[in-house]
Amino acid sequence: MENFKFYNPTKILFGKGTINNIGEEINNFGIKKIFLLAGSGSIKKNGVYDQTISSLKINNIEWVEFWGVQPNPILSHAREALEVLRKNNCEAILAVGGGSVIDEAKAICAGYYKNDIWDLFEDDRELTNALPLFVIQTLSATGSEMNSYSVLTNEFEKKKWAFGSRFTYPKVSIIDPEVQMTLPWRQTVNGGVDAISHVFENYFGGIDEESTLSINEALVRTIIKTIDELKLDEKNYKARANFAWSAALALSGLTSCSMRGGEWVVHRIEHGISALFPDVAHAEGLAVLFPAWIKYIYNYKPIIFKRWAQNIWNTDSIEDAINKFIQKLSEWNAPTKLEHLGVKENDIPDIAENAFMQGEIGNIKSINYDDMVNILRLAL
Amino acid sequence: MENFKFYNPTKILFGKGTINNIGEEINNFGIKKIFLLAGSGSIKKNGVYDQTISSLKINNIEWVEFWGVQPNPILSHAREALEVLRKNNCEAILAVGGGSVIDEAKAICAGYYKNDIWDLFEDDRELTNALPLFVIQTLSATGSEMNSYSVLTNEFEKKKWAFGSRFTYPKVSIIDPEVQMTLPWRQTVNGGVDAISHVFENYFGGIDEESTLSINEALVRTIIKTIDELKLDEKNYKARANFAWSAALALSGLTSCSMRGGEWVVHRIEHGISALFPDVAHAEGLAVLFPAWIKYIYNYKPIIFKRWAQNIWNTDSIEDAINKFIQKLSEWNAPTKLEHLGVKENDIPDIAENAFMQGEIGNIKSINYDDMVNILRLAL
Repeated sequence: MENFKFYNPTKILFGKGTINNIGEEINNFGIKKIFLLAGSGSIKKNGVYDQTISSLKINNIEWVEFWGVQPNPILSHAREALEVLRKNNCEAILAVGGGSVIDEAKAICAGYYKNDIWDLFEDDRELTNALPLFVIQTLSATGSEMNSYSVLTNEFEKKKWAFGSRFTYPKVSIIDPEVQMTLPWRQTVNGGVDAISHVFENYFGGIDEESTLSINEALVRTIIKTIDELKLDEKNYKARANFAWSAALALSGLTSCSMRGGEWVVHRIEHGISALFPDVAHAEGLAVLFPAWIKYIYNYKPIIFKRWAQNIWNTDSIEDAINKFIQKLSEWNAPTKLEHLGVKENDIPDIAENAFMQGEIGNIKSINYDDMVNILRLAL
Repeated sequence: MENFKFYNPTKILFGKGTINNIGEEINNFGIKKIFLLAGSGSIKKNGVYDQTISSLKINNIEWVEFWGVQPNPILSHAREALEVLRKNNCEAILAVGGGSVIDEAKAICAGYYKNDIWDLFEDDRELTNALPLFVIQTLSATGSEMNSYSVLTNEFEKKKWAFGSRFTYPKVSIIDPEVQMTLPWRQTVNGGVDAISHVFENYFGGIDEESTLSINEALVRTIIKTIDELKLDEKNYKARANFAWSAALALSGLTSCSMRGGEWVVHRIEHGISALFPDVAHAEGLAVLFPAWIKYIYNYKPIIFKRWAQNIWNTDSIEDAINKFIQKLSEWNAPTKLEHLGVKENDIPDIAENAFMQGEIGNIKSINYDDMVNILRLAL
């Protein structure tokens, strides 16, 4: 078992009606004026906005609203937001939304202490502080509500990159699964695929670390089971809630303990896709790429893929397990081929080039440009 | 799924050689003088003391040593320690040892802000602060390295009680499983039983919370598997490490999410035993009582005990699962009857009376004095 660090100071309030506590939680930090960051306005339809504002008012917290975070959040919007935040002397950020809102909020919180936000993504080593971040999460997928990571797209340089720091864990995150009851099916599935991918990216870094591997298997089995249940009844609160908690834990640090940093090849190549095809949802790219990567890599470390086949897919055959994985994605109406994303064979070199901008990646086998091309070809 | 809170800010450094980092970690908090609390001296034999002191010296941290914490830590010793700490103006505590040292350290850290340490255990509601706590853990069992709880015995009133507060999470805990390679078998088994009991006390509070229940099952299966492996080879690092991490997680808050507070009946009755029979190790009392409690209670909530039988013991019969549980404890040479602890039938009323001092307990069925007597009788 490899040495590791575990640290996750985010306080989670989980369950029905918990949004009403946000004002009190912010008050506990002595914060009087907050920057409320949000997306396109869905929170005005599902009651989240009203509950949030009501709790802020009761606790005498002033707020400044800033809307328009995109599904793949972009640098220019984050820069604008930071300017407004500074102008209004806000002391902290309240992110109300899904992973993109939370990710952009983290970039702003940390960017507050840098010359420019993008400096964080090119080199985060000198970060020494960040504004406090509070979260009301409305979509279970990225796990951003319970980790320190932020993914942002620099649309000028076509870079979709990530950073993380011990300063960018949310102080408090509220997860009320009830507000997800009315999500379109596509978003529910994308959340499921994203969460499963986070566990898998860590899992395959392991060999026989029984403690972490068995927790990871438990999480994935729960996610598959609950997405199956939601396919039958999207208003099943029990399934929503169990999924929401598993998705939060999937990238909380718990799944990466002793996993040698995990693999993250699929995420990297996917960022190449969604940097060039901004309409492709991150999870849809992951759905297409994950089985292709496993096909390409499993012979380099059969022990872990054999265990994966047995404990997730109930089969001794890795090939059989890959097929079951693809079949499950199809059942959920997730895309399983590049063509489903509108990506063609002759786009592959550009995608690989974009993904390779940050160099080789992966521990099982270091994945270079040619490997990326080959993996993308397996996804045709 | 019931609403819940999750919060655990303890930073964990896990693995070989990590004790060398303690000075740097303390330095990060700007602490210049620390109170080093320890037990009977085993840390001088296994090299832990030398590594600790060396790291403190390198980082120019002064320390004051205080020895003699007992396996069931007692109030008078904690009071003495606090007096010495005050006299020497120490800014924080470094607990070096197992659960008893860590528990007593928490009581001192929080007691620093009270008139008397025992006030914490009678009523912890008014606690507003605690001294920072750092931990070098040498025995995986209680999970105290990764939670806020402290159990202390008031030997004057024969009360073995617990308290916990958001201020008493260790800032940093170091878990180096290598220092546990030379533990006597009895202590390894007691650690395993203690950790399993922590998961079970939470687990049986559930019904069908797939996320938490499946993580709890994964933890218990890992603990059983690794203790079995250690029975074959006590120097198996992989098994020591996987066990150590599972035991830390067992009472970290992760296992209690949405579990309605768990049950904790067995812990309460056990505290009655070890308050009156101080030579009985906590885990030995738990080993004897847990199967007895399950026999007594399972018909009140068969759904969860059926799941437990299937997913932990691979059987559909709850009675069969209880027998397998007892058989496993016997294989490990753990006690399975009250007589193995030196407790006789006519001691039962006194034990039940002591355990009932804090009133009824339990959610499946509220357990009163008579129930406690009946459970103890099933353990004869």
